[in-house]
Amino acid sequence: MKKIYLYDTTLRDGAQTEGISYSVNDKILIAKKLDELGMDFIEGGWPGSNPKDLEFFKKIKSVKFKNSKIVAFGSTRRKNKRASSDPILKALVESKVKHVTIFGKSWDLHVRDVLKVALKDNLEMITDTIRFLRSKNITVFFDAEHFFDGYKHNPEYALDTIIAAQEAGAQSIILCDTNGGTLTSQIIKIIGEVTPHIRKNLGIHVHNDAGMAVANTIAAVEAGCTHVQGTINGYGERCGNADLCAVIACLKLKLNINCISDRNLRELTEVSRYVSEVSNMKHLDNQPFVGNSAFAHKAGVHINAMLKNTFTYEHIKPDRVGNKRRFLASELSGKTSILFKAKELSFDLNKDDRHTKNLHKLIQRLEYEGYQFEAAQASFELLIKKALKKYKKFFELDGFRVIVEKRQDDTLISEATVKIKVNNISEHTAAEGDGPVNALDSALRKALQDFYPTLGKMHLSDFKVRVLDSKAGTAAKVRVFIESQDEKSSWWTVGVSENIIEASWQALVDSIEYKLLKEKEADKN
Amino acid sequence: MKKIYLYDTTLRDGAQTEGISYSVNDKILIAKKLDELGMDFIEGGWPGSNPKDLEFFKKIKSVKFKNSKIVAFGSTRRKNKRASSDPILKALVESKVKHVTIFGKSWDLHVRDVLKVALKDNLEMITDTIRFLRSKNITVFFDAEHFFDGYKHNPEYALDTIIAAQEAGAQSIILCDTNGGTLTSQIIKIIGEVTPHIRKNLGIHVHNDAGMAVANTIAAVEAGCTHVQGTINGYGERCGNADLCAVIACLKLKLNINCISDRNLRELTEVSRYVSEVSNMKHLDNQPFVGNSAFAHKAGVHINAMLKNTFTYEHIKPDRVGNKRRFLASELSGKTSILFKAKELSFDLNKDDRHTKNLHKLIQRLEYEGYQFEAAQASFELLIKKALKKYKKFFELDGFRVIVEKRQDDTLISEATVKIKVNNISEHTAAEGDGPVNALDSALRKALQDFYPTLGKMHLSDFKVRVLDSKAGTAAKVRVFIESQDEKSSWWTVGVSENIIEASWQALVDSIEYKLLKEKEADKN
Repeated sequence: MKKIYLYDTTLRDGAQTEGISYSVNDKILIAKKLDELGMDFIEGGWPGSNPKDLEFFKKIKSVKFKNSKIVAFGSTRRKNKRASSDPILKALVESKVKHVTIFGKSWDLHVRDVLKVALKDNLEMITDTIRFLRSKNITVFFDAEHFFDGYKHNPEYALDTIIAAQEAGAQSIILCDTNGGTLTSQIIKIIGEVTPHIRKNLGIHVHNDAGMAVANTIAAVEAGCTHVQGTINGYGERCGNADLCAVIACLKLKLNINCISDRNLRELTEVSRYVSEVSNMKHLDNQPFVGNSAFAHKAGVHINAMLKNTFTYEHIKPDRVGNKRRFLASELSGKTSILFKAKELSFDLNKDDRHTKNLHKLIQRLEYEGYQFEAAQASFELLIKKALKKYKKFFELDGFRVIVEKRQDDTLISEATVKIKVNNISEHTAAEGDGPVNALDSALRKALQDFYPTLGKMHLSDFKVRVLDSKAGTAAKVRVFIESQDEKSSWWTVGVSENIIEASWQALVDSIEYKLLKEKEADKN
Repeated sequence: MKKIYLYDTTLRDGAQTEGISYSVNDKILIAKKLDELGMDFIEGGWPGSNPKDLEFFKKIKSVKFKNSKIVAFGSTRRKNKRASSDPILKALVESKVKHVTIFGKSWDLHVRDVLKVALKDNLEMITDTIRFLRSKNITVFFDAEHFFDGYKHNPEYALDTIIAAQEAGAQSIILCDTNGGTLTSQIIKIIGEVTPHIRKNLGIHVHNDAGMAVANTIAAVEAGCTHVQGTINGYGERCGNADLCAVIACLKLKLNINCISDRNLRELTEVSRYVSEVSNMKHLDNQPFVGNSAFAHKAGVHINAMLKNTFTYEHIKPDRVGNKRRFLASELSGKTSILFKAKELSFDLNKDDRHTKNLHKLIQRLEYEGYQFEAAQASFELLIKKALKKYKKFFELDGFRVIVEKRQDDTLISEATVKIKVNNISEHTAAEGDGPVNALDSALRKALQDFYPTLGKMHLSDFKVRVLDSKAGTAAKVRVFIESQDEKSSWWTVGVSENIIEASWQALVDSIEYKLLKEKEADKN
């Protein structure tokens, strides 16, 4: 079995995503996670381009890696400099890394219009740069920028650039589809024509502008590439890079290439989520292999078949990549998924049960009003338990009030008062907060704290708002999702109202009730 | 040039997306939009499976389409029924459509484990069903469900199923990768082996579970398929179907297949956004061709090159698909993008200008605090104008107060008071609203209305909240984006605070200031 080298550029190319802005600490956290996953190479950044990346390379030296080598990125020397006095190359050498990726121009258009040098000068820039770094005992990967576009326009010249890199001592030659517009058939054809000329490792680096980055990467491996570049979750400028999560899963599970261990593959979903968390990006539900919906079944006929044989509507077993199968509660899937969920909660219902019918109707009505339980399973569980009268209230609300005030001197005050009853004992209390939901959350916990001390161990970890009918403007209904977590798990709850405070309140209350119920049931067992 | 038939299944397969739930009216709106785009076939739903789809087929009869034919979806007859008395087929005939898609089993595993019939009985079910519909003069498309998985396990039987459909009179045979796990190389190989046996149109229908749906669809067309199924934005169960936006753009711009007109292609981005709006799904920024970031440049070196030649980092011209090029303001791209934006606003700055340096520092500080201007260009423009002292305040705030109260009887009240000054004339007013932001918005407009009557013509159209440091729970900083629109355009503004009301206030104020400034500048010209 041939060895495939995994090369991650989340910290460099991924950082170009609209909306992503990594701190040095973010980058270190991600690098450690990628090392755990078993990445061969981690491109940390471009030490010549900004102070943040310089600092990263300083700090990363003190981090020990089990699997990964840190790589610095840079360009070929400037046209009017000698390699030895070029500031970019100097920064690379000073970063003290042992592996450097140099990108150089393979498309004559770029040489003429961007570098504005003669075609042969660009070849010399490639040669000088690589030779210089080799003289410092640095391993060099050559990113042939725009190789495929260059090859389409001027195949001889594109080939000349990578042959120059090969002769100068690059360890791997990476063919880049920088603009991401190349079709799979062209990738296969061009790699086939290039292979006879290259005796070094061939690599692939593609962008997703035509929606083909993963397919193009896998096709390139089938065509002979042994070095694979991409980013976690496909982050990257414009439409992103090849998503390494999908690439790794395909290499392992479709091509049987042992690029990471089976055990590490089971961490894939967690790594993907972790990187999205640190990147402050929404984790996409429909992301292949690792998305929350990747193995979620909604169609009634699919769920029925899955209950007979899980192979019927799953291309792989979800636990191989650390993901989970889910059956969704929805009006389309009908009663089957309600029964399934009820069964998970140890209620034995059947299809024609009066309870099942009532639950089904209730859920349809709530979904019509804007609730969504697919992404708020904790609220869904509470709903089932309440409908089946398997739920005893932990407290009653007598009322709340929230005030936010901004004064002329710019002071901002958020205060909430909450009046509740537990076992007929009243509690009326108030709290300030950093905002109205926080004040409300604090006041509610304060009121409940003496009755339920374990609430001190949970906290809200995410908060989402969606305007349901945008045409109604600020008067529109909003749906609020709240994620809470304690030391053991996390759970999502939902609230819907035209009032964001009320919607948040519903989700807050569900969240607290879910926690208390969980404790109570754990105590029983 | 060969004719390629575009077949959209957003309304049926797309409706299986986690989070999507179409009303009958939503479906009609989408169908009309798809017709405008030039779709050949629109699969409206499965009239046998639920009352909503039945109603859709009733209502759609009165809608006139220019380009599209409406198709109903259904399965082969049940194992123990005759075709003529099968309720599913009856519902199809009664829907009065002229085109029907029948899905049948091509994978022996499904025949055995799900249908639980003998392999030859399944062939008869396919034959009977198609013959029956043909006898009613209905054109039949045969979706060979799980064809590729079936072919991998039992090629002879998979072939038998589609030959049965061909002999029974199906007009097109659609090869489905239902579980979405087939690699492009396998798609190409299998279609090559199937082609000699089929004289009808071959079609392709693939899911995206391995991240290859678009590439697999295009590869199938290159291998000879002439009927292409997919969904707008790739909606669909699990990881979705092939994204028809990318497929259409690739067919037109990469393979020069004239599946829709050039003019209609320029509506592609709008259609994609419209469908996401009706579907109540976030429009993905990085979606190929039509995403907001699809032609957004952030890396400094890319922006520099783009200013020399736009061909350098774009695989197609964005206006061909109705999208736009953008240069992003960000700490990474540095001063170039600030200069570029300033130029758009007709300010001639240069790199070493004191203003440029100050602006650059200011933006870096604000981004550090959590602001993001990439997605809030209206706030960014205001920021530049304010920094360059090209902005005169329209009003001053003396203070606001927002109260949300929930009483024991469940009544909920939101009230805001606002005190402002315009040209030293004070206005102190109050308004109720459906929620705190709505009350604040109403009170602010009410206070400004007499001074600026055109504010009556704008309204808020979207509202997003993101928790910036989720570890801080409800006390975390939140970033609010508000989209506003008037009859001419829409614009996004941003606010950041630990207090959601204050963050909303900032975005609201920016939104109103942007509108007033726009009017003022239009008056000048």
